Amino acid sequence: MNINYNTDGTLPPDAFRITGGETVTIASADGAGALYGKLALEEKIKLGADAKTLDITSVPAAKNRILNHWDNMDGTVERGYAGGSLFFKNGDFAWDPKRIEEYAKMLAAVGINGISINNVNLRDDSRRLITEERLPQLAELAAAFRPYHVRLIIAVDFAAPKTVGGLPTADSFDDGVIAWWRETAARVYAHIPDLMGFLVKADSEFQAGPAALGRTQADGANVLAAALAPHGGTVFWRCFVYDCLQDWRDTKTDRPKAAYEHFFPLDGAFAENVVLQIKIGPVDFQVNEPVSPLLGALTKTRRAIEFQVTQEYTGQQIDLYAHAVPWTRALKTLVRPGQTLAQTRADTVVGVSNVGNDANWTGNPLALANLYTFGKLAWDPTLGAEEILRDWATLTFGNDAAVTGTITEMLLQSHDVFAKYTAPLGIGWMVQPGHHYGVNVDGYEYMKWGTYHRAAHDALGVDRTSRGTNLTAQYPPEIAAVYENTDTCPQDLLLFFHRLPYSFRLKNGATLIQHIYDTHFEGVEDVRRFIATWETLEPRLQPQLFAVVAERFGRQLENAVEWRDQINTYFHRLTGIPDEKGRKIYD
Amino acid sequence: MNINYNTDGTLPPDAFRITGGETVTIASADGAGALYGKLALEEKIKLGADAKTLDITSVPAAKNRILNHWDNMDGTVERGYAGGSLFFKNGDFAWDPKRIEEYAKMLAAVGINGISINNVNLRDDSRRLITEERLPQLAELAAAFRPYHVRLIIAVDFAAPKTVGGLPTADSFDDGVIAWWRETAARVYAHIPDLMGFLVKADSEFQAGPAALGRTQADGANVLAAALAPHGGTVFWRCFVYDCLQDWRDTKTDRPKAAYEHFFPLDGAFAENVVLQIKIGPVDFQVNEPVSPLLGALTKTRRAIEFQVTQEYTGQQIDLYAHAVPWTRALKTLVRPGQTLAQTRADTVVGVSNVGNDANWTGNPLALANLYTFGKLAWDPTLGAEEILRDWATLTFGNDAAVTGTITEMLLQSHDVFAKYTAPLGIGWMVQPGHHYGVNVDGYEYMKWGTYHRAAHDALGVDRTSRGTNLTAQYPPEIAAVYENTDTCPQDLLLFFHRLPYSFRLKNGATLIQHIYDTHFEGVEDVRRFIATWETLEPRLQPQLFAVVAERFGRQLENAVEWRDQINTYFHRLTGIPDEKGRKIYD
Repeated sequence: MNINYNTDGTLPPDAFRITGGETVTIASADGAGALYGKLALEEKIKLGADAKTLDITSVPAAKNRILNHWDNMDGTVERGYAGGSLFFKNGDFAWDPKRIEEYAKMLAAVGINGISINNVNLRDDSRRLITEERLPQLAELAAAFRPYHVRLIIAVDFAAPKTVGGLPTADSFDDGVIAWWRETAARVYAHIPDLMGFLVKADSEFQAGPAALGRTQADGANVLAAALAPHGGTVFWRCFVYDCLQDWRDTKTDRPKAAYEHFFPLDGAFAENVVLQIKIGPVDFQVNEPVSPLLGALTKTRRAIEFQVTQEYTGQQIDLYAHAVPWTRALKTLVRPGQTLAQTRADTVVGVSNVGNDANWTGNPLALANLYTFGKLAWDPTLGAEEILRDWATLTFGNDAAVTGTITEMLLQSHDVFAKYTAPLGIGWMVQPGHHYGVNVDGYEYMKWGTYHRAAHDALGVDRTSRGTNLTAQYPPEIAAVYENTDTCPQDLLLFFHRLPYSFRLKNGATLIQHIYDTHFEGVEDVRRFIATWETLEPRLQPQLFAVVAERFGRQLENAVEWRDQINTYFHRLTGIPDEKGRKIYD
Repeated sequence: MNINYNTDGTLPPDAFRITGGETVTIASADGAGALYGKLALEEKIKLGADAKTLDITSVPAAKNRILNHWDNMDGTVERGYAGGSLFFKNGDFAWDPKRIEEYAKMLAAVGINGISINNVNLRDDSRRLITEERLPQLAELAAAFRPYHVRLIIAVDFAAPKTVGGLPTADSFDDGVIAWWRETAARVYAHIPDLMGFLVKADSEFQAGPAALGRTQADGANVLAAALAPHGGTVFWRCFVYDCLQDWRDTKTDRPKAAYEHFFPLDGAFAENVVLQIKIGPVDFQVNEPVSPLLGALTKTRRAIEFQVTQEYTGQQIDLYAHAVPWTRALKTLVRPGQTLAQTRADTVVGVSNVGNDANWTGNPLALANLYTFGKLAWDPTLGAEEILRDWATLTFGNDAAVTGTITEMLLQSHDVFAKYTAPLGIGWMVQPGHHYGVNVDGYEYMKWGTYHRAAHDALGVDRTSRGTNLTAQYPPEIAAVYENTDTCPQDLLLFFHRLPYSFRLKNGATLIQHIYDTHFEGVEDVRRFIATWETLEPRLQPQLFAVVAERFGRQLENAVEWRDQINTYFHRLTGIPDEKGRKIYD
């Protein structure tokens, strides 16, 4: 197949047009578009398209499509479930150039054009990546990614003027601090002229920030932005700011309200090259959460939607879990009157990486679907879960329809299955503290993280409506009204927004308590069905692939059984209400 | 004062007689008795006795009065709350000879004549203390203790023939293993001829043991005993054997039954120089537990009563807690028909040490009372809590009656205060997993350690009577009958032995739930009273001593408040029953 590359200055950056024929023409305005066009062509052909008849124009919805690695320089990965870091080991850089090239190509193939490599929780020497001692190596890494149009981002410590620069303060209003950031940006860009920017987790979970110095988040972000502006760099400023030392006795403070409360009043106060990076849900990547109200509310500030590709609360690449279903659902959710999240057109989309140095990248090879899904939705947030997952399965397992169909179907079901056996109806957080795998109903109930279910003998959940903490008021009235009313609130979010008695009737006629029992018994059976289904594929799969996934399904079943039994026992002890169907609930 | 030392061969080992006069005469059969007599004389004089009129004959009730250190060779102390190890640091021996001499003298002053220095949970190099590379230094340490008649004990790995000796097995029936232990004993005694013996935690919490090889505990212990016998050494064999991988769904297995089940059938099967070392309670050093049934049941085997001097579950030397009250209560408890625990005359008494390299030995200086109490009760188990604590306070703070009286009174109350605000009525275990400080009602409820309260909306506790797990059958019928009946069961143990509805009426007329609320509110007020009382002593105490204890009281108050609120909220949520007195219980 011959390919002819054309320049078409009318196309936006990164976009491409593929025109089929004996010679396929790929038109773009830039080199990135040409690369994306070529990779898209290869993908289409693998998926069975006829090169002769192709006619595709593809424009990315978001300008910045970014992965954040939470890699520590000791080689560990925070919330990583796929081995160690691709970049660091024992306090220093350590990468395999061949592996990095494969990785860069993989990222380009799904349209990702930016990555931060170091953890937003800055520790020890990771603060010093912006110094002369570290920049030459970082520049080498940037060079390795450059052919694939993937640009580096550095996570920086807001207090770097003190912790790295040795200044007496990191106050954004201090001339020395302003100058220090300006010099630092110049130094960094001298080594990496196409650096995408700095990523900052400020005033969050013990990371430094402007609030401690009496400054606003905008004051803090804008000083970094001013330093980066001459170099075309961007500040990605995370909005994950909340009181992580809350008292469980305090029922007024409500953690999901925090990001909006901190950032909405500052809408419009941020510099042009600041992007506010907002988690997709208002709490923290739980199995079911509403879309963060801040994502719809900001209209005068650039926004990034942050997804968590790595499965922190969603099975840790042991349990099967495809993000495609909840992410597409979120993107199709109304966040402004008449406008879905996808339609608000955030110019940046960020995913927290799920890859590590495991040979198969993601520990569970089926988890690679999530990286693919992230890239595809960053480029085109209107795609459907089924088409994304089917394409991924086909690209990964080839054209055996039995295999791809079966795997696609399992992936499509995986979120609902996981949701069935874990915390019910959007309440979240009934996990083991710290590592977040497995059940512990009261694990976070009396801790300082602001994550409470307040289950009592008569009712369960936190009332976040206007009768309660009034989180709903952070949404436009039309949308708030949907969440306010138990008749219209999506069932998956019922216990996120409402405190309900166990006798509450769901749409299907079951009481709340019966629903808890039913879903927990069903979830385990669903996992058993996954296992049986997977076993039918054994003759059609590579033995090692089959075995790796089968082993994980075995652990998923143990996990689901433990969730089922602890949740059912907990609520049975609490309510004394028996299962209508008389199934085994332990005393 | 002139002292005249006499030899009196009719006195038993370690015993002494003090006869007052212008010259005081101390008679004993051995050097240890002379030392104990001299130290006792000094103590009596400090306590205000008139040397002229003294006439004391003192014979220790137990032959072996031992402290077990749980010190690791990295310098940490398992369950230590007073700094690092006195003996180890960074994987090697490291001690201050002056400190060791002070310590040895302190031990002799309370009659302790044996110490093991390394943790019963053997890790890494601590297994190799029995090798030529470590024995020379260990012998130096033994020499440092020798002038004070304190003999060393070594905690050894049951699997040492494998892990240290390189043999293919540690099976007690293997000739190579038998020979290896014999050679090892000879080697150790060549360096330390007066070693008291070996201490073994076998088949317990992942330590190796004979059971895994299909042998009995007696098979295992007797091989070591045969090796030590020619040298006069003793095997101290811990009975802390239970299923630490229990499934919470399993209501048949009951952890407090385990020690009896494992060891009672072997009564009489152990060699003469084996001592079975049995924790005072059948679970694990909780605030209120019954006396272990095994302590009364064994009649053909030597027994050691094991106390935990260090405050693992009892406030970690932050909260004020004098063991004197519960220990004296336990020693006065009937364990055989007509016979108290003290009257059964165990020939060995063991305490798990509470000292570390903190300047004041125990972190909280008031915790030193517990080491004193341990020594005094090991020597004479019929002493009363008040006389022990008053003597300690007088020896420590001098003859200011306001100070000693106040401190004695606080110490006497401390156990009951701690019991009030922690887990109610002997149920135990509502602590933070792992470190065991602070409240977590369900912290152990779904774990594998066999420690469950099974609190439900209608009732609380595990029925351990003949209607339940039948732990009571491990006691003689007369004693079992006391525990079986809620009318006669000591109130402190009510929820240890019984599962009761919240409406159950206690002796004072309060319901069970009201008692929980009342004691938890009272416990906090009691701590506030401690603080106020302590403040009255400020003018009479050294400023640093005052401040160190005051700081700990501050933390105790925080701890008590957290216990009160979490316990009250947990049970209020669970039962829906309000506090009759309308005090604040958080939702």
